[in-house]
Amino acid sequence: MTGSTRLPFTADDYRSRMDRAARSAADAGLDGLLVAPGPDLVWLTGYAPTAVTERLTLLVLAQGRAPVLVVPTLEAPDAAKAPGAPALNLRDWTDGKDPYAATAALLSGAGRFGISDNAWAMHLLGLQRALPGTSYDSLTEVLPMLRAVKDAAELELMAAAGAAADRAFEEIRKVPFAGRRESEVGADLADLLRQFGHSQVDFTIVASGPNGANPHHEVGDRVIEFGDMVVLDFGGLKDGYGSDTSRTVHVGEPTEEERRVHDLVREAQEAGFKAVRPGAACQEVDRAARAVIADAGYGEYFIHRTGHGIGVTTHEPPYMIEGEQQPLVPGMCFSVEPGVYLPGRFGVRIEDIVTVTEDGGRRLNDTTREMVIVD
Amino acid sequence: MTGSTRLPFTADDYRSRMDRAARSAADAGLDGLLVAPGPDLVWLTGYAPTAVTERLTLLVLAQGRAPVLVVPTLEAPDAAKAPGAPALNLRDWTDGKDPYAATAALLSGAGRFGISDNAWAMHLLGLQRALPGTSYDSLTEVLPMLRAVKDAAELELMAAAGAAADRAFEEIRKVPFAGRRESEVGADLADLLRQFGHSQVDFTIVASGPNGANPHHEVGDRVIEFGDMVVLDFGGLKDGYGSDTSRTVHVGEPTEEERRVHDLVREAQEAGFKAVRPGAACQEVDRAARAVIADAGYGEYFIHRTGHGIGVTTHEPPYMIEGEQQPLVPGMCFSVEPGVYLPGRFGVRIEDIVTVTEDGGRRLNDTTREMVIVD
Repeated sequence: MTGSTRLPFTADDYRSRMDRAARSAADAGLDGLLVAPGPDLVWLTGYAPTAVTERLTLLVLAQGRAPVLVVPTLEAPDAAKAPGAPALNLRDWTDGKDPYAATAALLSGAGRFGISDNAWAMHLLGLQRALPGTSYDSLTEVLPMLRAVKDAAELELMAAAGAAADRAFEEIRKVPFAGRRESEVGADLADLLRQFGHSQVDFTIVASGPNGANPHHEVGDRVIEFGDMVVLDFGGLKDGYGSDTSRTVHVGEPTEEERRVHDLVREAQEAGFKAVRPGAACQEVDRAARAVIADAGYGEYFIHRTGHGIGVTTHEPPYMIEGEQQPLVPGMCFSVEPGVYLPGRFGVRIEDIVTVTEDGGRRLNDTTREMVIVD
Repeated sequence: MTGSTRLPFTADDYRSRMDRAARSAADAGLDGLLVAPGPDLVWLTGYAPTAVTERLTLLVLAQGRAPVLVVPTLEAPDAAKAPGAPALNLRDWTDGKDPYAATAALLSGAGRFGISDNAWAMHLLGLQRALPGTSYDSLTEVLPMLRAVKDAAELELMAAAGAAADRAFEEIRKVPFAGRRESEVGADLADLLRQFGHSQVDFTIVASGPNGANPHHEVGDRVIEFGDMVVLDFGGLKDGYGSDTSRTVHVGEPTEEERRVHDLVREAQEAGFKAVRPGAACQEVDRAARAVIADAGYGEYFIHRTGHGIGVTTHEPPYMIEGEQQPLVPGMCFSVEPGVYLPGRFGVRIEDIVTVTEDGGRRLNDTTREMVIVD
């Protein structure tokens, strides 16, 4: 992590995001937001501490009051350099002092606050103890869509990250697979993502043969064999915004069954994509993709949700999952990634990042979804 | 992070750690421990999820019951491969189900639990809601010394990590400083740490001239000049255990004042080290080092605590700070790192990792603490 991100955003952009967040919090009946280091803080202020430690750093947002960043004295000089720093007040606290008392003084003793999902339990307990009259909800619960709708500048960065991931796929399909370890192909993928501008590689899944049936397998020592299906799923951050795409390739000619399962997942992915339109509930995307797979008799082998949001992280709301009734809004970005996993045999997953437009969806990944044969 | 650490520890080692932790919890009046992904989970089970996400992973420990790891179904195959997995039961939960209900079923409805400092606030709130009869304390508060006392095998790994950091210093003092950016020397340091066996570099601070007066400055674009003091502070993990050492070097001959301040910090570091003995309170180490600096009139320029524990992380209890009355116990490992920071001018910090022995302390860093002149 770096002391401050290098996004093309100004203090005014961050001021406007903080204003909007405080307003949304008030609209949701909250007395304020407490934002810990992580993606929310990066998005709201451009600030990412060098390391997240037990020392409390917390942004306090409340409508009608200037934003305050509570920060350890040692880290205050770094925080002051963040691009959003001109839009907030720094309140530093020194080792040995009680940071919860310092924060409590900003919360006026009572109320209901949204707190970052990933704030440390230790800090939440400290606040609960310092202010017994307060109550808390996780940000994802009360403001799940805080960062979900991307503006034009953000969409441009998302599209550029997707295009870079696509370039990585176009190169990786040319490398030899058979006879090399998954970990070697994974290292190639990571190199390619960096070569095409990623500053951070979050995952490079290369799941060959039976490993493909474990959706979260990353890379292993397995030597890829002729005849293997290989799930490739890779992404990270480029200029602060995320990529995430999956393609399933085959080493040599596939069997009839392998081709059939691949076609099925491709159709499911297409159906999920086609369900994307403003006003549709997230769960409709999941249902559309899942129905294709279930109708073909493979329902029990599609063992995860259809997608997740993406932005300054590669994993965030909204989630495309049964039960999620959040309506889609133009500017939202998320994955559509159905899969079929046949235990002990092989897996197939096809994934694009999709953004909601005024009249449907637009894919931010555009490499072929037909099965690619590799060597 | 990797799916499982490659420590030379067996399932029996992890079983014994989990037993001890459950016993310590009971002794502290707790009904159990809830351990989230992070250093505590690595230490107790050898398991580190590929990525820490919003999906709940939680180890539930209670005396007299078998340890249970609540884990997302998707990640269960990885968890099952952890070296400590044979010593626990896996309880997986599927996307769309309520992981707090699954966890609540293990907690028998009421009681007081210790929870990892870095567990997500979101998960703590979920548990508090699922089980209104439960209360929670952060692990550092109730069992601060859970991982603090290292056994013989751990001490060997700590010593090896320290020796590797020392080798990095012996090499970095030979490189040219003047005319190069801090970031370039920092990259050299990171390469050296990796070359000498570190799998993870946590920080490589190169703080030259006035930057040295900011204790948390990492590296910047500043070009190091002839005549600069340069604080070097670097460390990371080797074979799962941490290194962290600081030396302050000078480009060319120092001024009389620079030499005097460096000597002062060296004496303070020596005084802190000499205060290390079984039974002494942590704050005595801080006081001993601080007294030397205060007596010389520089007290206001020593703006951080004297040290922090180190083990499977580079930053953990015990803390060498005023008010910390925890007695030192043989096997504890921590930094002794006083500093003087003269705003706008320069800083000096000298740091060794020290382990408590039966009759005093032993340094795990052993490069010269005299001022080294570099080019």
